[in-house]
Parts: sequence; C-alpha cells; structure tokens
Amino acid sequence: MREADERLARMHVSAAVEPGQPVLLEAVRCHGATTIVDVLTRGGSVLDRDGRHGRRLAAVDPQAVADAGQRLGLSFVIPGDAGWPALLDDLAGVVRDGRGGVPVGLWTRGHLDPATLDRSAAVVGSRAATVYGTTVATDWAAALVDAGVVVVSGAAYGIDAAAHRGALAADGPTVAVLAGGVDQPYPRGNAALIERIADEGLLVSEAAPGSTVNRGRFLGRNRLIAALARGTVVVEAGARSGALSSAGWAQQLHRVVAAVPGPVTSAMSVGVHHLLREQHAVLVSRPAEVVELIGRLGADCAELPLRPDAPTDGLSERGFLVHESLPARGTVTVAELMVATGLGVSPVLRALAELAERGLADGASDVWRRCSPRRPVP
Amino acid sequence: MREADERLARMHVSAAVEPGQPVLLEAVRCHGATTIVDVLTRGGSVLDRDGRHGRRLAAVDPQAVADAGQRLGLSFVIPGDAGWPALLDDLAGVVRDGRGGVPVGLWTRGHLDPATLDRSAAVVGSRAATVYGTTVATDWAAALVDAGVVVVSGAAYGIDAAAHRGALAADGPTVAVLAGGVDQPYPRGNAALIERIADEGLLVSEAAPGSTVNRGRFLGRNRLIAALARGTVVVEAGARSGALSSAGWAQQLHRVVAAVPGPVTSAMSVGVHHLLREQHAVLVSRPAEVVELIGRLGADCAELPLRPDAPTDGLSERGFLVHESLPARGTVTVAELMVATGLGVSPVLRALAELAERGLADGASDVWRRCSPRRPVP
Repeated sequence: MREADERLARMHVSAAVEPGQPVLLEAVRCHGATTIVDVLTRGGSVLDRDGRHGRRLAAVDPQAVADAGQRLGLSFVIPGDAGWPALLDDLAGVVRDGRGGVPVGLWTRGHLDPATLDRSAAVVGSRAATVYGTTVATDWAAALVDAGVVVVSGAAYGIDAAAHRGALAADGPTVAVLAGGVDQPYPRGNAALIERIADEGLLVSEAAPGSTVNRGRFLGRNRLIAALARGTVVVEAGARSGALSSAGWAQQLHRVVAAVPGPVTSAMSVGVHHLLREQHAVLVSRPAEVVELIGRLGADCAELPLRPDAPTDGLSERGFLVHESLPARGTVTVAELMVATGLGVSPVLRALAELAERGLADGASDVWRRCSPRRPVP
Repeated sequence: MREADERLARMHVSAAVEPGQPVLLEAVRCHGATTIVDVLTRGGSVLDRDGRHGRRLAAVDPQAVADAGQRLGLSFVIPGDAGWPALLDDLAGVVRDGRGGVPVGLWTRGHLDPATLDRSAAVVGSRAATVYGTTVATDWAAALVDAGVVVVSGAAYGIDAAAHRGALAADGPTVAVLAGGVDQPYPRGNAALIERIADEGLLVSEAAPGSTVNRGRFLGRNRLIAALARGTVVVEAGARSGALSSAGWAQQLHRVVAAVPGPVTSAMSVGVHHLLREQHAVLVSRPAEVVELIGRLGADCAELPLRPDAPTDGLSERGFLVHESLPARGTVTVAELMVATGLGVSPVLRALAELAERGLADGASDVWRRCSPRRPVP
C-alpha cells in the first residue's frame, strides 16, 4: 500500500502545485511525495512560507484526481515505474529562470511507452513560423522518423505542429508535451492534431487532468520538451521565442542543441542566428546531421556535402599547366604552348597526351584545341 | 639605381612567372628579385629544376613591361614603397594547395592608396548567386562603406559584382583584385563595372598588364583577396565555390572569417553552412556584426538583437501568479483567485492593485478581468 500512497500523493501534488518549482520538486525527489504532502498540509514548513501550497493541497481531493485520470484513460508514471523516462532524471537540481526539477510524475495519453525515448529529438520553433520554417520542420521530422528517431514537440502552432505532422505523415511516433492537462487540448486550433497524436503517439504533461494552461506552465513545459529528447533542434525563432527557452534548457542539461539557419532577412531566424553566433547551438543543415548529433557515436555519421568533381581533378601538374594554357576558343601550336608554359617540347607533348586521353584536349601533331566545355573558373 | 633595378626585376618576374609560387616568392622576398632573376636566367638552380622559369624570363623584355604599364597609367608598388599594403606581408611562408607567398609587387589602376586598407572587408561568394545572396551582398557592402570599411572583392559575376555595386552605390571605396592584368577586364560581362571601379576605387593584380586569366591565377588571386582584408565575409557558396578558397586563406592568415547563413534548402548556402558547422567561420546576420569583427576592440560593438519587452516584465512573483490566473475572457472574483493561486486575500488584493496600475487588470472591489491583450504564450 506504501507505493499506492506515494502514487496518489504525487497525483495530489500534480493537481495542486504549479509545476516546475525546483525546491519543492527536489524535496519530493528526496523524501517522497507522501512525506512532503504531509509536511505541507500540516503547515509551518519553510517549503511553504505563505501557506499557499498547503491551502491548495487541502482544496484538492487526490482520489478525485485519480478517478478523473482513470475515467479519461490516462496513465500516471512516476520515478521507479518501468514506463518512467530515465532522461527526466537529469532535471534534478537544474534550475533556469527560477524553474526546474524532476516532475513528480507524468500524465500520459496514448500508446507509446515513454521509457523508449532514448533516441529522440525535440523539434521546436516559433508559432509565427514562415513557410520556409514549417516546410523544414515537416520534412525533417519525417526524415528523423525514417531514421528511427522519436520527434518530441509542444503541439503549438507553427513549427511544433509542422514537426508533429511530419512525423505522423511518416507513420512515426511523436510525443507532444502539453502545458495543461492531457485532456485539455491547447491550442484549440490544433485539437484535431493533438487527438491524432494521442491515437498514434503520446501526449504528456506534468499537470493533472483538467489543468488549463498559463504562462508559468508553458515555461515549465519547455524544460520537459528539452529533457525528453537527446537533442533539441530549433527550426525558427524570433528574438524572444519560447523555442529559445527549450534550447536553453537543453544546453543546461548538457544535451545537444542544434539550430537550422535561415535567411538573415527573416525575423523568424533572428533567434536562431543568435544561438549559432554565440555558439549555444550547432548549425544543422540536413536531418542526417541531427541524427549524427543525437545518435550512437560512430554509427550515425552524416555524409559530408557532395563536392562535385572537376574534369581537371587528378591531372599531373604539367597536364594542369598545359590545360590552362589552351585557349578557350581556337587552336594553339606546341611551340606556342612551350612559350606560354615555359616547358620543353617533350613535357608539353606528354601533357597533351594526358589531356587527350581524358578528353580535355584534341589535336593532331602540332595543332591543339581545348575540347571540354570550359568549366567556370572559381 | 639599385632600387630601380629591383623594381624592374620584380616587374620582370610578375610578367614571366605564374603568381603564387611559394618557394620562388619566398626566395624573392629574402634575396630580392634582382638576385633571383639573375640566378634563374643563368640556369641550373634548384629553384628551377626544369628550366621553365629561366626560359620564360628570357622570353620577356622587362623594359617593355614597364613601358606598357606606364602607357596604361598603372602603378606598380613593391614592398618598401609607401603605397605597399602591409597586410600582404602576412602571406610570407603561408602555403595552401601548393600556392602562397608575398607577391613580388602589385599592379594597380585607380586612385585609392592600397596602403590605406587597414579597415577592409572582403565580401565574396558564388558566381551563381541567388537573389537573396546578391541582395545581401549589395546591402551589406553599402552598409560597410557607410561604416568606413573598404569593400574588397574579385569582380566576378554574382556576389562579387553585387558587393562592388553596393559599395559604389554608397559612394564608397572598393577594391577589385583581378586574376589577369588590371588592363584585362574579366569577366567581360563586368567590363563596365570594372571600369567604374578603376575610376572610383582600385583595381589590383599581381599579374603584369596583358596577362590573361587562368585557373591557377584565380587560385592565387583568392589569397590576395583574403590578404588585403581584415576579414572575409562569405555571402553564398556552393559546395565547391572559389569563395571557400578565400575563406580558407583568411583562416590560414588568422584573419576573421565570417559567413552569412541562408536557407538550408538553397544549394548556394551549402558551402557557407559547412564553414559554420565546422566552426571555420563566425555567423554574421547583420553588417554591424562584420564591422565589430574587423573593427577596433571595444569601439565597434554591434548591438544585440532587439528583444521586445513583455507587458508582464518586472511584475512581482504574486502579481505574475495572479495575472496568470485571470481568465482570458470573462470575469473572476477575489475568492476564485484565492483558490486558483493558493494566496490569502491581502496578497491577492495587493497583486490586483499592482496589475491595475500597469493596465493589466481592471475591476471593482470583487469582480476582475484581464485587460491587456493576452500575449501569445511562448
């Protein structure tokens, strides 16, 4: 019964206390929720100087929270459960803008096992995204899924929604971390998308069912997005985008932070470029580079960008010199080539033979011409 | 007469020997051109195993080169001249892809004193530039000129031409480094632009007048572009762009290398993103950042991107908490706010007073409403 009590106490906290309060969460992590709920409801604790938490706990019936969860078909995983994502434990003691800590538990809705999130990437960005940003988010999310990576995001408008859609389009798993309860689709305009994620992926929140969103919960949510992924990819971000908050969390958690550049003329790339310029993020220009960053060392290497071959690659130095001395139009004699290059007759003839063999020059005895299309010079 | 001899010998070398041969140039730098020309024409030197240089020198009349230069109104500056750009001396001993070295002299055409190039930026990029790239190059070159920076480039199609045009449009000085002689405008399609640069800025080449372009001279030219600027900015570059060669030279010279990101969907930004990803270049998203990088320490700082203020910035913690608990639509009572926040009556009333004063809440005694436009959540 001790374990069931602890689970109920954690549900109680998740319903009564604003998420992401680092001192309180650290107390629960060390002493368990049963003890801490007891301390807070008795009152007078340094954890609750103004009695706010105690009053909120007293106003919430934990059994009603549990019943609501069951009625809605939700799961509630807590540390120690098989389904608990070990990635979240890295949040212990990490504080950013006054928020932090390991959640007391995760409310989930869907069929994906949250403990399988060891190969996952958060794809985040501005709500006011451009067509460029949403195209990249959709395409990359699909490519990540194809590479076996779970796509984590926040179900917001813009980049988040595009990332989820891309993952779903590739029939892959995707996780939406919500700021309110998992029964409270937000934003409303994405309700159908969120429903589809519940069907094919997973909805996750540290807030109890019934909780509505507020600004504080969004900030706490950003830390979960970063913590549930091996790496966070920022696709577009204005100067004050919430996506930068997720990136900051990822950095504090020593996770990979990657950023997709965009045109310097786009306000939606200002935040991204700032991250890159300050070296808070690694530039990624292809999804394979994301897979490499979050992947297994040595096993997931991205190929270098293709460097097209030049027709003169691999020529001998003299072959190169003579080739350069062939005029773009018209013909040239061996004697003229000797003057132009300063080479003797036999090096020039050997070079011409080399060029003829590679189809770069064409001639008979003394009259030669360039015969490849002249490559644009660098 | 010794100095006039040396000048003539350097003209001789510039007309007879392919530019950028590091061992030969280092020999000239250490022993002077008079000595080296003498050694090469006598033959049998390790500097000229196949006698190529000696034969080329014998075929060229140095006085004819000097006369041609004078007839064309060119200058020829050599190390030690007042007009010699000290920046070029950094090329001593620096070798890249088999090329390198301090040029024996610079042929120039125009009115700008090359010795004044201590505040200069090379703006380079692909010939097959996009509208995005040429727009950035033009705008930034004009902004750099406005900030007192000389814009150096290579007069090629695409980014180079756009950079020169931007500088000229801002009535500023610009330097075009040519691969052939300064009397041989290349590419022909930019002949009018090159003529205008000669009128209002400066044409520069290490090749003697009459020299045509070849691939080797383009590679040697890229090192001069990098060496004549405090920093090199790559605006667009495909995977095998010559602009990457200038960037590589700048890096080897320990000069600033900056790169302008673009859409990851653009082939013309692949090379730029590779530079940034491998940390060979610093990301720049505004010309002010270029000025900062090449400028005087502390004097040329770029402002950080503007971070818009949020209406809730600077609220007390309780003010923030109560503000979050005000519903987006409709009204709420003080008692409801007490339940929602867990705060007692007087902290709630003090918070409401704070919000009302900042125009974030509106109410009378017991009924309150949110009255700022609800900011989009992050």
